[in-house]
Amino acid sequence: MKAVEEIFGIKVDNSEIFISALTHPSYTKEKELDYTKCYERLEFLGDAVLKLVISDILYNKFPDSAEGDMSKIRSIVVSDNILSKISKKIGLAELIIAAEHDEKLGIKKLESVTACAFEAVLGAYFLDGKFELLRLKIKEIFLPYIDEICENIDKYNAKALLQEYTQSLDKTTPIYRLVKESGPPHNRVFTVEVEYNNEIIAIADGKSKKEAEQKCAYSACQKMGVIKCQK
Amino acid sequence: MKAVEEIFGIKVDNSEIFISALTHPSYTKEKELDYTKCYERLEFLGDAVLKLVISDILYNKFPDSAEGDMSKIRSIVVSDNILSKISKKIGLAELIIAAEHDEKLGIKKLESVTACAFEAVLGAYFLDGKFELLRLKIKEIFLPYIDEICENIDKYNAKALLQEYTQSLDKTTPIYRLVKESGPPHNRVFTVEVEYNNEIIAIADGKSKKEAEQKCAYSACQKMGVIKCQK
Repeated sequence: MKAVEEIFGIKVDNSEIFISALTHPSYTKEKELDYTKCYERLEFLGDAVLKLVISDILYNKFPDSAEGDMSKIRSIVVSDNILSKISKKIGLAELIIAAEHDEKLGIKKLESVTACAFEAVLGAYFLDGKFELLRLKIKEIFLPYIDEICENIDKYNAKALLQEYTQSLDKTTPIYRLVKESGPPHNRVFTVEVEYNNEIIAIADGKSKKEAEQKCAYSACQKMGVIKCQK
Repeated sequence: MKAVEEIFGIKVDNSEIFISALTHPSYTKEKELDYTKCYERLEFLGDAVLKLVISDILYNKFPDSAEGDMSKIRSIVVSDNILSKISKKIGLAELIIAAEHDEKLGIKKLESVTACAFEAVLGAYFLDGKFELLRLKIKEIFLPYIDEICENIDKYNAKALLQEYTQSLDKTTPIYRLVKESGPPHNRVFTVEVEYNNEIIAIADGKSKKEAEQKCAYSACQKMGVIKCQK
């Protein structure tokens, strides 16, 4: 637990819940432990903690923004993609406990797993009675990401932009299709294409289906002139 | 603000945000006031406050429940339907400020309006620095509803919810249609769509027709805003 304390700079009182927060379900299954000893329940709580703190940050940072705009930014900020990046950067991802077999397959590097464990630790700190300290720490961690997202909001919200555009043209919705999955389990590459009016307008790779779809939409937006090319 | 203080039993310091929390957008439009003076931004925040507190209650009340089960219960607890009932019961709904014209049309009784104002007031108390007191009050208000929901979870099942909703709109019933059966006999997959007002509103797969129908209804409820669920 010392590692967690060092990462967050917040004391851990009930270390048992933090162990659960870092335990992947594969481990509890392997060791025939109770389901409640894995991170899933704590992730449910931590997700809500994070959403509230991010909502509060956005509310104060953008005093004139409409609810819909804050909602869009929040959904990007709390996406697995961002949470996983943070989880790896602060060194939390490497603390995850998984079944030996799954660990060898690289499960500890998966976007969804690293993101879940991060949220679960936030949930653990909330239960540990550290909400006020946690708020400050979350703010410190997320502010640079929020700034970056707001600067590049077009890139992050490409799917919504594309759909808005095609619906304004002819009320149709672009169709995303997973065309290929390749690479080893811990480093999967997803290839997605997007079709509009019976035509494939873009293809892109990503580390998750979601990421590939966003990249695909971004490329389609550029081709269709919805957004201008960025350097 | 005395009325709000009496309802929640929590002191109001910054009364300005509580006025916004009770102001329907029709009023700010009518009086040409700034958008930020209506409840929409505070509702964004209050929704997150409520979800966290309810998540915490469910986490502690059901120490063995899976994340998915808590998530389902939470989506019912924080539905407009329940929040509106509470908003009316505690006397908050009647404090809403709306444009004269809309008030005559009965806007202050609408489920979505009464639910939003309730969430916005929770957001206002959060900003007012009363989170810990608010948690206790939310727990006191919601526990009987959570008990009732858990006892009658079947009643709250998605198909029933959807039908109740469409009947309240125009007295029609959604139509479920099995569109595909696939997979080997021991692992059949049933694909069901649900139609409402000549429009397919959702499609879902399931291991049985029943399961696919429930999933389909659940997805339709989310799309139509009958239940809120972000997971």
